[in-house]
Amino acid sequence: MNQKIARFFEERRPQTPCLVLDLDIVEQNYNALETALPDARIFYAVKANPAAEVLSLLTRLGSAFDTASVPEIQMVLATGCPAERISYGNTIKKEADIRRAYELGVRLFAFDSEPELEKIARAAPGARVFCRILTSGEGAEWPLSRKFGCDLDMARELLLKAKDMNVQPYGVSFHVGSQQKDLKQWDLAISQVAQLFRELEAVGVELGMINLGGGFPTRYRSDVPASAAYGQSIFDSLRRHFGNRIPETIVEPGRGMVGSAGVIESEVVLVSRKSANDSKRWVYLDIGKFGGLAETMDEAIQYPIEVLAEEMGEESFDPETEAVVLAGPTCDSADVLYEKAEYKMPLALKAGDRVRIHATGAYTTTYSAVCFNGFAPLQQYCI
Amino acid sequence: MNQKIARFFEERRPQTPCLVLDLDIVEQNYNALETALPDARIFYAVKANPAAEVLSLLTRLGSAFDTASVPEIQMVLATGCPAERISYGNTIKKEADIRRAYELGVRLFAFDSEPELEKIARAAPGARVFCRILTSGEGAEWPLSRKFGCDLDMARELLLKAKDMNVQPYGVSFHVGSQQKDLKQWDLAISQVAQLFRELEAVGVELGMINLGGGFPTRYRSDVPASAAYGQSIFDSLRRHFGNRIPETIVEPGRGMVGSAGVIESEVVLVSRKSANDSKRWVYLDIGKFGGLAETMDEAIQYPIEVLAEEMGEESFDPETEAVVLAGPTCDSADVLYEKAEYKMPLALKAGDRVRIHATGAYTTTYSAVCFNGFAPLQQYCI
Repeated sequence: MNQKIARFFEERRPQTPCLVLDLDIVEQNYNALETALPDARIFYAVKANPAAEVLSLLTRLGSAFDTASVPEIQMVLATGCPAERISYGNTIKKEADIRRAYELGVRLFAFDSEPELEKIARAAPGARVFCRILTSGEGAEWPLSRKFGCDLDMARELLLKAKDMNVQPYGVSFHVGSQQKDLKQWDLAISQVAQLFRELEAVGVELGMINLGGGFPTRYRSDVPASAAYGQSIFDSLRRHFGNRIPETIVEPGRGMVGSAGVIESEVVLVSRKSANDSKRWVYLDIGKFGGLAETMDEAIQYPIEVLAEEMGEESFDPETEAVVLAGPTCDSADVLYEKAEYKMPLALKAGDRVRIHATGAYTTTYSAVCFNGFAPLQQYCI
Repeated sequence: MNQKIARFFEERRPQTPCLVLDLDIVEQNYNALETALPDARIFYAVKANPAAEVLSLLTRLGSAFDTASVPEIQMVLATGCPAERISYGNTIKKEADIRRAYELGVRLFAFDSEPELEKIARAAPGARVFCRILTSGEGAEWPLSRKFGCDLDMARELLLKAKDMNVQPYGVSFHVGSQQKDLKQWDLAISQVAQLFRELEAVGVELGMINLGGGFPTRYRSDVPASAAYGQSIFDSLRRHFGNRIPETIVEPGRGMVGSAGVIESEVVLVSRKSANDSKRWVYLDIGKFGGLAETMDEAIQYPIEVLAEEMGEESFDPETEAVVLAGPTCDSADVLYEKAEYKMPLALKAGDRVRIHATGAYTTTYSAVCFNGFAPLQQYCI
């Protein structure tokens, strides 16, 4: 357990539920990624956690930013970050938003279709564009649909077309899936991109950039490869497929940058059984799927959850645990966190006890509903 | 199409995405429910849409309210509604919140477990309590987990215990599942409750109320039974199982009260294919799963979606349609609305066109994320 965060909870005793984010961990994660991938430019995926303190820290450390919308671009600019460090990485943009981003100085845009490329050419003349390709996403914990990217043939055709439009065909991006633990997935995608680079070069389009996306995992309930292993594996792939001509490389960590830096504290609201001989207890927390834990959808992301033993009283504390169903506090039957995942909690657990939900720095605060069931959005403290 | 809402969109041309809610329809729905169930007391489920205008209208019409939290209770009280018309229907409550509700004048509380009953007895002395029982939820479109309710044996035991505690055992509630279209589900639950009433009467506990919950459906893409059919069927069941001693009856419509009153207008951000020979186009809207359409989860709720033909130009309008995948605007691969549901849209559809998503008055605004990807929460206009 992070001592700085534990101390904050003990001294401040903030109202639950709340997320406490340790900025030192974010800085460590940034440095570890930079060390692991010394030749890659880091574009932090703002959507993972857009807290002003996080953005300011990363601006100071020299990070660039991957943004999904004009408000995210404005949040990054507000930290003093120059616009040339910002990528508008969403492949789904209104033309008016592209224009606004261009006015704000952004010159790097993603696309994966002809209509989007045309919008960028009209609204952001001269900008650099990169095309996102489809990858399988196998091995990722958070499901990757076919929502983003196009196939390699279409990517080739569009990047060739871009040459004759008012934009600069600049590179290719892919995403192996968030929380991707299979290192071979990067190699497969990198080999496809290298092939695409060669084919385009043969017809006069010289690309300069490969965007490896995110996917760098956070440790939840099971171990994940370390940043260094990722870096080595990715570098080996780049060398193997691009030889001595490795292009400029971009990575877009979100979860890998902030996930491990956050801890949510939550109060147990109720512990009950549905019948006298029910084999599983139900444990209801004051945070659920609509209060920030949306990534528990289909039990995809399984956060480590710690029951605060000291809260339960030294003497009465019974170390025996039993599997529980974990659910949120709303009147919505879909607001169940974990039913199959077999979380175990002490038999002595009762209403008023507290739990800490670890590795919750990414994709929590902004997912939280604006006021579902009258509950306020998740509060965050950056320390 | 509702003419009042259509006129509002045409005259005001509000920024998309936004929800327009017709208060006249809410009033019609209230009156239809009152006519269909003349002997039942209507407790509007605030969580479905807590807009101040909706709450004020319903207070004026004489409705009572089913609330999930202290903020919801406060929103209802702010409309001038007396506290005796409020039920604190969430079975998962912090003791401090029960106490606060009691201080605000609330005297009707739900429970489904012994610890919750004990909390109420401590924090709300003398209050009326009702026990929620588990039902199967078969036939409901929105999934009903085992999250709420206990089995009949436990309910009997707890209501008997309540007699000797500082609360008044008052009734039983159940919920057949939201968007429940199988009328027989009510009959099954009512028969079980009637049996429970008789058993408890035999041991000296006289209950006075049966809470039939919600579940009254809204018409989405397929027809649903009319309010009148629901009312008749429920009344027949009550007569069959309770004879001449039908208890006070409560219903808790949420979706059935406001669902049909709302229309969301959204702009098409992009129409694309993933490859040259892709059989399905992808249509990306400026609203998605995290912007208010959370109930598209697993494609459970299928809203009727209308493409605004006039927007597309009289002459160029091609009536031919083709199946599409519908997705939201965020950089989240889970933000796909309908992939299997086979929505068909015109071949001529393009970025900038508008669509109207009907029957979206319930469970949209409050589900919307606080700022995921930098997108603002869903805006609502009550007219």
